[in-house]
Amino acid sequence: METVERWGMLEVSVNGPTEGNPFTEQSFFGTFTSKNEKVRATGFYDGEGVYKVRFMPSFEGEYTYETEGSFEGAAATGSFTVTAPNVDNHGPMRVVNQFHFAYEDTTPYYSVGTTCYAWAHQPESIRQQTLQELDQGYFNKMRFCVFPKHYIHNFRDPESFPYEGTPVDNSGLCEENFSYHVGFEGNRWDFTRFNPEHFRRVERCIVELMERGIEADIIVMHPYDRWGFSAMTPEQDDLYWNYIVARFSAYRNVWWSLANEYDLLRNKKLEDWERYARILCEKDPYNHLRGIHNCMAFYDHSRPWITHCSLQRQDLYRHVEYTDEYRTRWGKPIVWDEISYEGNIDMGWGNISGQELTRRFWEASLRGGYAGHGETFIDEENDILWWSHGGLLHGESPARIRFLHKILCETPGYGLKCGQGSFDETVGVPDGAGFLSFGGGASYEIHYYGFGRPSFRDFYKSPEDKWKVEIIDTWEMTVTDAGVHSGKFRIKLPCKEYMAVRLTKVD
Amino acid sequence: METVERWGMLEVSVNGPTEGNPFTEQSFFGTFTSKNEKVRATGFYDGEGVYKVRFMPSFEGEYTYETEGSFEGAAATGSFTVTAPNVDNHGPMRVVNQFHFAYEDTTPYYSVGTTCYAWAHQPESIRQQTLQELDQGYFNKMRFCVFPKHYIHNFRDPESFPYEGTPVDNSGLCEENFSYHVGFEGNRWDFTRFNPEHFRRVERCIVELMERGIEADIIVMHPYDRWGFSAMTPEQDDLYWNYIVARFSAYRNVWWSLANEYDLLRNKKLEDWERYARILCEKDPYNHLRGIHNCMAFYDHSRPWITHCSLQRQDLYRHVEYTDEYRTRWGKPIVWDEISYEGNIDMGWGNISGQELTRRFWEASLRGGYAGHGETFIDEENDILWWSHGGLLHGESPARIRFLHKILCETPGYGLKCGQGSFDETVGVPDGAGFLSFGGGASYEIHYYGFGRPSFRDFYKSPEDKWKVEIIDTWEMTVTDAGVHSGKFRIKLPCKEYMAVRLTKVD
Repeated sequence: METVERWGMLEVSVNGPTEGNPFTEQSFFGTFTSKNEKVRATGFYDGEGVYKVRFMPSFEGEYTYETEGSFEGAAATGSFTVTAPNVDNHGPMRVVNQFHFAYEDTTPYYSVGTTCYAWAHQPESIRQQTLQELDQGYFNKMRFCVFPKHYIHNFRDPESFPYEGTPVDNSGLCEENFSYHVGFEGNRWDFTRFNPEHFRRVERCIVELMERGIEADIIVMHPYDRWGFSAMTPEQDDLYWNYIVARFSAYRNVWWSLANEYDLLRNKKLEDWERYARILCEKDPYNHLRGIHNCMAFYDHSRPWITHCSLQRQDLYRHVEYTDEYRTRWGKPIVWDEISYEGNIDMGWGNISGQELTRRFWEASLRGGYAGHGETFIDEENDILWWSHGGLLHGESPARIRFLHKILCETPGYGLKCGQGSFDETVGVPDGAGFLSFGGGASYEIHYYGFGRPSFRDFYKSPEDKWKVEIIDTWEMTVTDAGVHSGKFRIKLPCKEYMAVRLTKVD
Repeated sequence: METVERWGMLEVSVNGPTEGNPFTEQSFFGTFTSKNEKVRATGFYDGEGVYKVRFMPSFEGEYTYETEGSFEGAAATGSFTVTAPNVDNHGPMRVVNQFHFAYEDTTPYYSVGTTCYAWAHQPESIRQQTLQELDQGYFNKMRFCVFPKHYIHNFRDPESFPYEGTPVDNSGLCEENFSYHVGFEGNRWDFTRFNPEHFRRVERCIVELMERGIEADIIVMHPYDRWGFSAMTPEQDDLYWNYIVARFSAYRNVWWSLANEYDLLRNKKLEDWERYARILCEKDPYNHLRGIHNCMAFYDHSRPWITHCSLQRQDLYRHVEYTDEYRTRWGKPIVWDEISYEGNIDMGWGNISGQELTRRFWEASLRGGYAGHGETFIDEENDILWWSHGGLLHGESPARIRFLHKILCETPGYGLKCGQGSFDETVGVPDGAGFLSFGGGASYEIHYYGFGRPSFRDFYKSPEDKWKVEIIDTWEMTVTDAGVHSGKFRIKLPCKEYMAVRLTKVD
């Protein structure tokens, strides 16, 4: 009998008609049943007469399935056994402790993301470079697009297109004549016929991320478009959304990002986004995380279908420092998916230093939120920028982000929360918010000094308690033992930026 | 006949009674008359039977004066000639162009301030070091206190006290037992009898600043107190304010700062501050600039007696970047007198880098405001910190601030104003506010990239116009010619933080 691991993926295929338009004229479903669950999943047409339905089991044990559909031969039955998950398989992502994440098996997940919008559409040599970089373990979430991307540094055609047809000629495109808002003349697409190969490319990326313990934050729609994929009719959109959900839902590492910069999709209205969300809520049997990312105006993240706040900074100077305020406002996890990229392009959103990006990661994380990386270094020879294509990393922040993740994983419980701070009550006023103080409970605190460069800090603790003190150099990635202390004590620091002090209560 | 230069100071002295309390029981006035003005100035008792009245003439030509008072011998008359001012004497400071400053002779003044709160109260050797540093021309405004200061790093007694009496014993004071709010037991002061020597010390400082072209931003009240000077009765306060105004007003470089961190003076109410302001408005014949500086809560700077907004940042991360918003809110010059100091003390308000302080100066200045410097490096041997005592400078920002001032002085007209920016209309959205663009009119622009590190920037100008382009490295303090350009053009930049591009229209 076939076996599949818990939170693995079972795929059932049948052969069916090729005539007419199988994408719109045929339907296919599978019902998967065990002692603990019964899931009816929508199938999809994968081209060349093959119809598929996919299932992710949430329980171990014996399952049966039966398929049905609009065509002769759609009906099939079978059974399979769900085994214990592999040691690296922790299941899909869930919200925990209101503001944080854990895999379904309760393993805490501290998100440190990156973005390679169009990596799925690149030639294989570049994709392999991307995977080699991801093998370094810098990141555990990747944002990327299903549709190809049209933008500065992104004028090459993708390796495949999502629809049958032919694209507008791109031979004259260059930065000099780039326009953000274009018409879509010259394209010839049949928006009722998908190109399954395009979606198989995306799925391969999802699986490659899964194999590396990386969540796939799938951007379903975006505005960087010269082909008209951002300007389809509601019927065409819904066909696409249903196809996406049918194909991708059974991969455990999927997060749904309804859009990148939803507010720049000038053809879409609020009612459209809400309709897509409804499709997700109805059709995704596994309730993967759902978010929607802004350019200028935040979506109202209090809407019930939104599981976490996917944010781009609204201000150049203060952004991740609002994490605690936004937690209060929306009562959901805060994920900063765009806070400027390490690099040196002309645009302000893509030329900050590795130090500054790392600082933003620490600020976001210690305030009980999560941050995302991107990299935009000019590549005059090949014009390959990580933020869009993947490829090779050039910056200094990835290693520091990995170090931060290691520190975050040492948090007791699920997620950091705002601590009491540590200031001298006799002084009576805080010291100009010169430090961040967040803890994992009454016995764990991290004090982060950001761009401050203190030569020492004083701590005021009960004389009864003993605290193990460590000095964390977040840039040099070192943790230095500073002894065990009680009562009021002074910790000397090296007058450098980006230092933190960690206190852990000991017996 | 006696001569005095325009905006110089004429002092008339008479001898009078020493018995009783001359400070409260006697009065002395002078009236100074010329073709263009008639000023009645209040005099003061300077000790040892000497009564003085001071006058700053606003016009050249012949003057007469007569004095009067409550005592025999108060009446005196005389005449003097007011000559043209010395080349370095531009008169007192005035607001110009709503948001900016110019001396009374119309010379523009671009404020780059510093703070040495207690420098007037230090031993002569330290004061001489301070003056030597000021001779380097880094700053053109200095904030300092009339009353001595009690604070961390400031437990030594001042060289003199403002009142007759004896201070509380300071021998046991140290950082370990420092408390921000103390009682005032152990002090014995007669708050009705000033110590003229203390005020002569302050006046010497005012003159030494004047000789160096530095405005004296006099902090009349402050909360860092162990002597009770911040907790006098309204009658005692008013006596003090009147004495200050009588003594200091005739120095042309005086600015009145009603308080440092007014909101920490827990014994003072709004009505007190308004009463002090009324004294200033009534008794200062020259209408020197008036401001009041906050700790947490801004004073309402729309009050009519306030000439400029003297601000301490309210937020750790975004502060000078609000300059343009505060200009709109209050419609007055914005002077950031406290935006964290370069240094390495433990407190967040005193341990930023020279780079970051310089960046804040540029942000404030290019948004059409002004910034202030301070320095707080730990000095384990002598505990002399510029921010409080003066002494020697150790930081990297002063030279950069002087360079900024040189650039500001090249602004056409009076003060920078918000420019249109320069972005590609075809792109349609600004690039994430990745740059500051401020100009001095239609033919002068400075684009500042702050912590961004662009490798180039594109500019979009009319093909008809010619622009001289210069690349300013605000940290290395260089201005590099980048040619003359028209239409759309690209300027290469060195992928470094703290760069600016200056455009000047040429014929």
